[in-house]
Amino acid sequence: MADLNRSKWVLKQTGFDLDQVVLNGSKYILGNGYMGYRGTLEEFRAPQLTGTLVAGLYDKVGEGWREPVNAPNGLFIQIHCNGKLLGVLDAKVEHHVQSLDLRTASHRRETTFVTEEGSRIEFIAERFLSLERKHLLAMEFTVQAEQDALLVIKTGIDTDIWDINGPHLQSFQNSETPGGIISVESKTHELGIPLCVAEALDFNGLEVESITEGSIRHITLKVHAGRVYRFAKFVTIFTGNDGVPSVTESAATACAAARSLGYQSLHSAHMTAWGEFWKEADVEVEGDDEAQFALRYSLYHLLAVAPPPDKNLSIPARGLSGQVYKGAIFWDTEMFMVPFFLSALPEIAKNLLMYRYHTLDGARRKAREYGFEGAFYAWESQENGDDACTHFNVSDVFTGRPIRTHFRDKQIHISAAVAYAFWKYYTQTGDSQIFQEGGAEVIFECARFFESYAYYKVPKQRYELLDVVGPDEYHERVSNNAYTNRMVLETFRIAQDVVNLLEKDNPEFLSQLIERLGFEKMRAELPRLQKELFITKPDDDTGIIEQFDGYNELEDMLLPELKKRLINPNEYLGGGNGLATTTQILKQADVVLMLSLFGDEYSKEVKSRNWYYYEPRTEHGSSLSACAYGLVACEIGETERAYPFFLQTATVDLTGKSKQYVGSLYIGGTHPAANGGAWMVAIKGFAGLRISREGLSLDPKLPRQWQKLSFPIRWHRQRFVVSITPQEITIVADSKNSREAQWMLGGKQVVCAPGAILAHRI
Amino acid sequence: MADLNRSKWVLKQTGFDLDQVVLNGSKYILGNGYMGYRGTLEEFRAPQLTGTLVAGLYDKVGEGWREPVNAPNGLFIQIHCNGKLLGVLDAKVEHHVQSLDLRTASHRRETTFVTEEGSRIEFIAERFLSLERKHLLAMEFTVQAEQDALLVIKTGIDTDIWDINGPHLQSFQNSETPGGIISVESKTHELGIPLCVAEALDFNGLEVESITEGSIRHITLKVHAGRVYRFAKFVTIFTGNDGVPSVTESAATACAAARSLGYQSLHSAHMTAWGEFWKEADVEVEGDDEAQFALRYSLYHLLAVAPPPDKNLSIPARGLSGQVYKGAIFWDTEMFMVPFFLSALPEIAKNLLMYRYHTLDGARRKAREYGFEGAFYAWESQENGDDACTHFNVSDVFTGRPIRTHFRDKQIHISAAVAYAFWKYYTQTGDSQIFQEGGAEVIFECARFFESYAYYKVPKQRYELLDVVGPDEYHERVSNNAYTNRMVLETFRIAQDVVNLLEKDNPEFLSQLIERLGFEKMRAELPRLQKELFITKPDDDTGIIEQFDGYNELEDMLLPELKKRLINPNEYLGGGNGLATTTQILKQADVVLMLSLFGDEYSKEVKSRNWYYYEPRTEHGSSLSACAYGLVACEIGETERAYPFFLQTATVDLTGKSKQYVGSLYIGGTHPAANGGAWMVAIKGFAGLRISREGLSLDPKLPRQWQKLSFPIRWHRQRFVVSITPQEITIVADSKNSREAQWMLGGKQVVCAPGAILAHRI
Repeated sequence: MADLNRSKWVLKQTGFDLDQVVLNGSKYILGNGYMGYRGTLEEFRAPQLTGTLVAGLYDKVGEGWREPVNAPNGLFIQIHCNGKLLGVLDAKVEHHVQSLDLRTASHRRETTFVTEEGSRIEFIAERFLSLERKHLLAMEFTVQAEQDALLVIKTGIDTDIWDINGPHLQSFQNSETPGGIISVESKTHELGIPLCVAEALDFNGLEVESITEGSIRHITLKVHAGRVYRFAKFVTIFTGNDGVPSVTESAATACAAARSLGYQSLHSAHMTAWGEFWKEADVEVEGDDEAQFALRYSLYHLLAVAPPPDKNLSIPARGLSGQVYKGAIFWDTEMFMVPFFLSALPEIAKNLLMYRYHTLDGARRKAREYGFEGAFYAWESQENGDDACTHFNVSDVFTGRPIRTHFRDKQIHISAAVAYAFWKYYTQTGDSQIFQEGGAEVIFECARFFESYAYYKVPKQRYELLDVVGPDEYHERVSNNAYTNRMVLETFRIAQDVVNLLEKDNPEFLSQLIERLGFEKMRAELPRLQKELFITKPDDDTGIIEQFDGYNELEDMLLPELKKRLINPNEYLGGGNGLATTTQILKQADVVLMLSLFGDEYSKEVKSRNWYYYEPRTEHGSSLSACAYGLVACEIGETERAYPFFLQTATVDLTGKSKQYVGSLYIGGTHPAANGGAWMVAIKGFAGLRISREGLSLDPKLPRQWQKLSFPIRWHRQRFVVSITPQEITIVADSKNSREAQWMLGGKQVVCAPGAILAHRI
Repeated sequence: MADLNRSKWVLKQTGFDLDQVVLNGSKYILGNGYMGYRGTLEEFRAPQLTGTLVAGLYDKVGEGWREPVNAPNGLFIQIHCNGKLLGVLDAKVEHHVQSLDLRTASHRRETTFVTEEGSRIEFIAERFLSLERKHLLAMEFTVQAEQDALLVIKTGIDTDIWDINGPHLQSFQNSETPGGIISVESKTHELGIPLCVAEALDFNGLEVESITEGSIRHITLKVHAGRVYRFAKFVTIFTGNDGVPSVTESAATACAAARSLGYQSLHSAHMTAWGEFWKEADVEVEGDDEAQFALRYSLYHLLAVAPPPDKNLSIPARGLSGQVYKGAIFWDTEMFMVPFFLSALPEIAKNLLMYRYHTLDGARRKAREYGFEGAFYAWESQENGDDACTHFNVSDVFTGRPIRTHFRDKQIHISAAVAYAFWKYYTQTGDSQIFQEGGAEVIFECARFFESYAYYKVPKQRYELLDVVGPDEYHERVSNNAYTNRMVLETFRIAQDVVNLLEKDNPEFLSQLIERLGFEKMRAELPRLQKELFITKPDDDTGIIEQFDGYNELEDMLLPELKKRLINPNEYLGGGNGLATTTQILKQADVVLMLSLFGDEYSKEVKSRNWYYYEPRTEHGSSLSACAYGLVACEIGETERAYPFFLQTATVDLTGKSKQYVGSLYIGGTHPAANGGAWMVAIKGFAGLRISREGLSLDPKLPRQWQKLSFPIRWHRQRFVVSITPQEITIVADSKNSREAQWMLGGKQVVCAPGAILAHRI
């Protein structure tokens, strides 16, 4: 990417490229957890996929998919000179730079237009979504002309909204306060939830002629050659989910408050907040600028979508980058994002988990819908926990007909992911309170779901899990998927451990909960379920763990051979008649994902054999695949094989290699699970960090060029900063730490006291 | 069919129609159980689909399907006049008649050709496949010319063989005995089984000039105007399966013997044998000539393919009409043909059952192949019991790719059909000896297969049968298919009954068998399996029995709506992406088939509701569908609704409505299961015959126009002739019967002594 000019902190692109407009919408995105704002330019409108996504606000219109609501665009600006629009799509552009500063989560564009009269006009705009004030988007922009000129600046709130299955907003009402704050209130179709966008403009004392038409201001401005005209724009958003009596009043009030504080002050507070964020999260790599930037960029995306503490929110699979994937929360969160948050910002990890508690009733409804008990979590979960996933997820390119897929009804491992993440939270934070705050109920209900799903094979005296879809979605309706069975066993084990733990901690709570849930019989079954659930063993001869019953009998081939059979490049490889369905080709890490989670149970030999068997048969058709292969490659001592997978998962939103459209359907957006995967390969793979209730351990296998890897880590309310060089491990314990911690370094147990600095030569 | 001029016994067609050539090959077929000879004309060759199929002889070449072997055509004749071929495809035809006499199983063609010189030459040929001498095909033909002419008659053995996946024969060796018997010996590819066709010609003392080239004679004949020249042809076939030291010697010897007996004598013996056959089997209908003929024609087809007693053979789904459906034996035999044979020719029914005993090891191999115990019978069984069915049975019309189907691995109800038929044999014949001759072993192994296939659902305390294909092949991989579960329960019940019966009859045999099979544990499980196997009950509100778990949730529509969605008329409706797969449209009777077998367990109301629910959702895309709907319609008192289904199943091989080709693949042929279905609707439906171990009962519901229905029936070594008129039932007991029988007539029990005539007014 010759045009990509990046420092360690700044993503920057010089020159305007029409082909990059859609991609850059995700690449240059801003977010503060409450909302996301796509990296489009100020003059863009719906066709360029402008987006202001408010987390947790969904709507459904007619038979369309239920999806997030895109708010009216409060940061809209179009500058006209002599009646001609100065925009990158319309005018001559002499110079253009778009940049995103990861450290401050600030977006900037600088464009020099050449008017039809041949005169230069420079337009610079900087914006941020305040991390300190979650409802606020703020912008400062300047205009400077080479010659005197008469400009008309159209700004305000653009209600030309990009929707996939919209329009979602109706009953638009404009208003303007005496103080010049304009606002647009509207409400969603399905639930009638109000949403208001308010905007205030700060002219910096300049006298301008401004007329408001609807929600757009038309500002007439005579500019003098060479003089810089500076404006600030403050946009606030409130919705019916915010628990305020009037969204318009709240938005207007917040807007007025922001304007009175001024852009610089707000920006400064925002940057401070991001600084704190980075302090808890940043990972430093020396000796490999590409890796450093990609990793930081990954963490930026995770931080930008981390939900605020007071909201029952989790992170959608495409973050806040649009209505893609219905803005739904998948297993991505628990399996691929939670590990990072647990280590950097455990209170956010807890938020994410509590979302599953708040949506437990949805999971119960889904279990009942399919005739099961307990909690069957939505494959695509929205704010209510109901499943947004349909039974027909893809189209047959040959007939145009929808293809029945079994993501929704058979991907049962989702409930195991939820239970697993709760346990990991407890393991790393030591916070057993979470079980009494909802965690135990979630875990018990997940275990019960699996008990009701399992079948017993009498002649073999074992439980089996039949007719499921594992991580590899190209093979639907398989039985005894190794990943699924192992995760379900883990769920039973966790349920048992939580029972044991609560028996000690709070037996009264436990007995009340068990009684309320009717969990007594199930509790008695737990030992037998753990003992008798079938777990696929590595083959005695080959060491290969069969991905599911009968996988070995499928047609064996490597990926290029399958590709040769394609008639249409867009044909779906899975489903009933997909090309991969009858072969051993898998979409994404499945057995290898299992090995990345339960590596301690398998020899290096088994891990190695499975890695080398499955990797050439894996399409890596999901952004969740690379990190598992990276992690296991590290475990088998193959750092150089892990490295490309690390880069793949860390750069997924940078390279633009991922597909943006299927037909006319936009499927682009950010990939926070891959971002979390990048963190995992760096920290769990290259640094070899392992975390248990007893302590932490490191077993570094840095890539050759890495001279240093440093990162903070949180464990049991303690905080450490780890630095690894090829020669040495250094651990700095925060002086505020309350107690000692056990570290295992190079096979040696070391005690790390508060404020201590440990150094260990490798 | 304006051109179809049929009496009660003779199928006849006047005029030659090129479009009917392929269809007539099946329609005018001859058979004697050992072999079948397609209803082609004497001058026809491979492109016209000539066929001499030897039962039980299969071959596989390369990657092609394993299929029956088509022998060289010994009945080939081509007459040339002045160097021009006189054949229906080549010469001017003034008059042409093709006929098949069902009573004598004799085929006749009469054709008057007009030569290029404008002179008429008449060619008449009559042929039969001797029922008395199974290896013999015999023919008499005459030639008569209006003017003196020089004819060259080419006859002998045509080795231009029609094959679907051939050529199957190699190493052809011609020979000619001093007595003028020519023969062709060859052998199959796969197993090297020899096959010989021998031919002798009887010139009736005429001096002719005959030169043999290869296996074809070139006979030069100067014919005089008006004189009739009569020839007889004798063809014999022996194969390596016949247990003779030399197939050529056996064929030549048999051929010479036939020639010395002469055509008339052989034909007379053949006709006597068929007379006996008809005596045991014929069903007479008065007042409905169409029904009478169609029913007789159906019985003709069943008799023509009934395997000889000394062969381990059963009846392929397409009889002996070609290589279609791989010449394989399906559940068609047990469920749709055995009932007729049990009632008319129980010794043939026993043959059919013993075939399953002889192929038990194949069923055991298949069970092991899929990880089960016991006997999983082949979906498409050939002589060795191995499954000729592939995992890919149909093609995707949109991509040309094979579609994965689950007929082979999931249609487990085949093993239940086998056990069921053994029990029905015992019920009707009283011959419990069959259990010691192999029946018990087959039944125990089928039961064991189902035990190993079943899963136990612990919370519901029941066994379930998961992931199966029921009779409706458009819905694959379903769970708890009502038909399958009920048939499997019946298998467990039968196994239990056989255990009980043998405990009384021959406890030593039983204990040895149980020990040899290791069946002790399984035997102990039988009561629990019977008690706990899940059986779908009719819905409390609607009375509908759900075809399988989740059927009710599928998209509901009637057949015409589905047809509207077709893009290609040939697209497959089932499989992974088929149009019917996600809807309630079924291929063929499924719940209704179950009701036709276990009607006594359900109220008339339930049967009626299910009939009316499922019928408009049934494509009747299988020839096995109509008879079940006919039977249940009779049970609910809807004779007039049953009648069209009776006609449909009885005329399946007459109307030519069934498909002959899919693409270039021939799929035509005869439908013996539908033929058996016609018998069932007539006797079990309209006459309302029920058979138990205790006796027989009748509950007639004749179609309005039927003045009389008469048929023989065998029960426990006794024989009766039943006649039913709208007013009266008459039962004539054979005077050779050995004991009294219980008949239930109109709810009244009546005892029928040997030689008695019972009359019961309705």
